[in-house]
Amino acid sequence: MKIARFSHAGTIAFGIIDDDELVVLTGDPMFAGYNPTGQRLPLVDVALLAPVIPRSKVVGLAGAYFADAVEKAAVQDGAAAEPRFFLKPNTTVVGPNDPIVLPAQSEDVRVEGELAIVIGKVAKNLSVADASSAIFGYTIANDVTAVDLSEVQGHGARAKSFDSFCPLGPVIDTEFDPTDGRILGRVDATQFQNGDVSLLAFSMEEIVSFLSHAFTLLPGDVILTGSPSSAQRVTHGDSVSIEIPGLGVLTNPVRSAA
Amino acid sequence: MKIARFSHAGTIAFGIIDDDELVVLTGDPMFAGYNPTGQRLPLVDVALLAPVIPRSKVVGLAGAYFADAVEKAAVQDGAAAEPRFFLKPNTTVVGPNDPIVLPAQSEDVRVEGELAIVIGKVAKNLSVADASSAIFGYTIANDVTAVDLSEVQGHGARAKSFDSFCPLGPVIDTEFDPTDGRILGRVDATQFQNGDVSLLAFSMEEIVSFLSHAFTLLPGDVILTGSPSSAQRVTHGDSVSIEIPGLGVLTNPVRSAA
Repeated sequence: MKIARFSHAGTIAFGIIDDDELVVLTGDPMFAGYNPTGQRLPLVDVALLAPVIPRSKVVGLAGAYFADAVEKAAVQDGAAAEPRFFLKPNTTVVGPNDPIVLPAQSEDVRVEGELAIVIGKVAKNLSVADASSAIFGYTIANDVTAVDLSEVQGHGARAKSFDSFCPLGPVIDTEFDPTDGRILGRVDATQFQNGDVSLLAFSMEEIVSFLSHAFTLLPGDVILTGSPSSAQRVTHGDSVSIEIPGLGVLTNPVRSAA
Repeated sequence: MKIARFSHAGTIAFGIIDDDELVVLTGDPMFAGYNPTGQRLPLVDVALLAPVIPRSKVVGLAGAYFADAVEKAAVQDGAAAEPRFFLKPNTTVVGPNDPIVLPAQSEDVRVEGELAIVIGKVAKNLSVADASSAIFGYTIANDVTAVDLSEVQGHGARAKSFDSFCPLGPVIDTEFDPTDGRILGRVDATQFQNGDVSLLAFSMEEIVSFLSHAFTLLPGDVILTGSPSSAQRVTHGDSVSIEIPGLGVLTNPVRSAA
């Protein structure tokens, strides 16, 4: 099931995608279940928004991918390090087609396409075996970073925190298989990323279990699972598209701050 | 005006402290203004809660204090570095008398008393001159850190993020003068902290202005302005009190994870 959040005629709602229509829901399916209003809308008539606005956490993994199959084989069954993570404020989140705004404080903003987990339950100290119960679904994320600030001692949090630095969307897929697949990134017509999700060093369940021991996960929390490729610098006027087959394409224009 | 958030007879509400009573308010004064319900409650009959649950950000400053008056005088009017900050998830926030829970993953958890700014308005790209308009008031924070994790490469965010690692309270004072005063920290009867707020390298307005250029500040965001003293290790059974004269005392017991 593919869940979208959208605006239409001045209101914001959630809906289930059914071919070229949206089955409109009452309330937020992460909190209130799937209750159709009876209304259906043509997809072309709505504007898709970020499919979730996290109430609590946007977590990003760092260094979570193996470089290649050789490294993966060498570490397989070994003691892979624990996941490392950072936090982004929920004010970074924007939706499909919203601009990524380049802050005046940076000369080097880069984008990375990532598979993102959306949490659907309050979850604390979950075992790996139980972790899938906390996963609501998956979406596409673009982890934007002001790289020149992150390289300045102590400004790592700031580099990841500017408004618009976390495009999400276009939908949450509750049935997506995250064990395989590719992450394709393009700036205009140029592909900069063609990553293999199977090179992720941790399973989705391992990631959720680990994080649930660091803090209580809440419905609507989003976990960016890291990038299998190097980040791509963007400038004013670019258009960035991240595609994960099965999840769709997340496209955002890039604009300088006014 | 001192604002408390409290539970009483199974409900949670905000109130204004009036001697030994609470003037109960309708809704959240950070969003809905000060509208008394007409009810008054004796303070002794309520349980004070964290005076705010941030909807978006808990920001902590790092290295924001001068070591002493000599260092302050040397840097005065000079080019003080920009503030450095980190983020804590809102799931770290607890209230007065709630336990600080020591996670099993750490052998060295430390506490630091800090003056905290509570934001009252949506604020973006504020000048220093305009920044005070975004400040709702001040409270006391205890910035708890699993120091042995923060020293492991890449686990800085995790070290600051465990549940209960941000006690706040007991109240928000909307008239507190942050330009002077002391931060007193005690573990049981032993004082570990006696810090001078005037050694903070930035004014409250400079901090709010700087952060409002990094992201949009939202009502209920909390900014921990850093610690003027070194952090104090705590163990199971300790009681930690942070006092800022004028703001009160924030006391939390320390417990091992179950």
